Amino acid sequence: MKILLIGATGTIGSAVVAALEDKGHEVVRAARNGPVMVDMTDPASIEAALTSVRDLDAVVCCAASGRLTPLASTSDEDFTAGLDGKLLGQVTLVRRALHLVRDGGSITLTGGVFDEPTPGGAFGALVNAGLEAFVEAAAIEMPRGLRLNAVSPGWVAETLEAMGEDGTRGTPASEVARTYLRAIEGTTQGQILLPR
Amino acid sequence: MKILLIGATGTIGSAVVAALEDKGHEVVRAARNGPVMVDMTDPASIEAALTSVRDLDAVVCCAASGRLTPLASTSDEDFTAGLDGKLLGQVTLVRRALHLVRDGGSITLTGGVFDEPTPGGAFGALVNAGLEAFVEAAAIEMPRGLRLNAVSPGWVAETLEAMGEDGTRGTPASEVARTYLRAIEGTTQGQILLPR
Ligand SMILES: NC(=O)c1ccc[n+]([C@@H]2O[C@H](COP(=O)([O-])OP(=O)(O)OC[C@H]3O[C@@H](n4cnc5c(N)ncnc54)[C@H](OP(=O)(O)O)[C@@H]3O)[C@@H](O)[C@H]2O)c1
Ligand SMILES: NC(=O)c1ccc[n+]([C@@H]2O[C@H](COP(=O)([O-])OP(=O)(O)OC[C@H]3O[C@@H](n4cnc5c(N)ncnc54)[C@H](OP(=O)(O)O)[C@@H]3O)[C@@H](O)[C@H]2O)c1
Repeated sequence: MKILLIGATGTIGSAVVAALEDKGHEVVRAARNGPVMVDMTDPASIEAALTSVRDLDAVVCCAASGRLTPLASTSDEDFTAGLDGKLLGQVTLVRRALHLVRDGGSITLTGGVFDEPTPGGAFGALVNAGLEAFVEAAAIEMPRGLRLNAVSPGWVAETLEAMGEDGTRGTPASEVARTYLRAIEGTTQGQILLPR
Repeated sequence: MKILLIGATGTIGSAVVAALEDKGHEVVRAARNGPVMVDMTDPASIEAALTSVRDLDAVVCCAASGRLTPLASTSDEDFTAGLDGKLLGQVTLVRRALHLVRDGGSITLTGGVFDEPTPGGAFGALVNAGLEAFVEAAAIEMPRGLRLNAVSPGWVAETLEAMGEDGTRGTPASEVARTYLRAIEGTTQGQILLPR
């Protein structure tokens, strides 16, 4: 398959690239700095990236993120980090990609889960839950046999290690990557897949 | 209690006003046209309304809404109806009200549920699920004993009737209003209350 992967240089994205190439797929790498440039906060750049690559079988997004922001203290703009890129950007990606991906192809997005209530996590919870509900509901409107799914990881081991914490509490990126392969190569539709 | 109710002229809001006044509460009515003017899409007007009323024990929002929009066809702006008012507006309301409502008071928002997968309902599902996850997560950060909850109605009988459909498939607005009273007069925190 020919697959556009947005966020190809990230912790998760680079593991997904490796897993896909291992299976013989052709991966077109995209990020804000990449062979293909995409900024998930900019709908025009999403459309430009999708139209610049021909005959796509799949689009995968593991790019853009939120951050923890206390409910009471920050500016509205800081508080809603993750809105434009992770939430609205991935919605825009679906709405553009469904015209451009080949019949029977797939779109795979990235959500996330908090294992426990996390101070500063309220807007991130909104983004992840909103995205998951969107995927489940939008799946029934996908044309031409296209499939839409999301992968929702908890902490990734390599991310915890980079933060100086205990990586064994998290899931290795290589295992998270296998969950993306289930979405891309499998038959799931409208599902939220949890790495395990 | 002294209660600011946004959306006081609506199908649900007017039933909540009636139920609250019946119990002897003082209701300050707000809407885009009202004694107190608020536009939920405009953060400055939300802040102005909250600061114009002193000694609030509770804030209730049953205003602003989305609409059904097909996944494939409309402009991004049409597609994301409900984003600025219902989703981000209610988030802004919480972030402003938590500084201004009296100790031990409450904030009650409005979500919604689709009984079944509904074509055109993907962004509405995002709005409702995002809002509900926000309420559950933000509750742990509420200061001074403030409580935060949401009411998530299905179809309201009067709304179905106004659409020329069978009202008995829905819940009467007076019953929906009783669910708001549970949130305002009760002790629930971080809950999504379903009218029943
Ligand atoms: N790592 C975890 O523990 C974890 C857990 C749960 C969920 N997640 C979610 O998984 C996704 C990926 O996480 P990650 O840890 O792999 O992130 P990461 O290591 O920070 O990598 C992010 C990737 O996305 C690209 N990117 C960032 N902002 C972008 C934008 N606006 N437009 C286009 N590309 C952009 C980055 O490259 P450029 O900077 O060059 O653009 C990079 O390739 C995020 O949605 C994150 O919330 C991660
Ligand atoms: N009715 C149902 O069957 C149903 C089912 C599930 C969920 N809900 C949700 O319940 C809420 C209320 O629904 P409803 O049926 O009662 O609505 P409605 O009858 O249309 O009334 C809406 C109320 O909100 C006010 N309003 C609208 N836009 C506003 C804005 N941007 N800023 C401030 N006030 C605004 C309106 O007054 P002005 O126009 O004067 O501002 C009116 O008072 C909505 O969130 C809706 O999605 C309703």
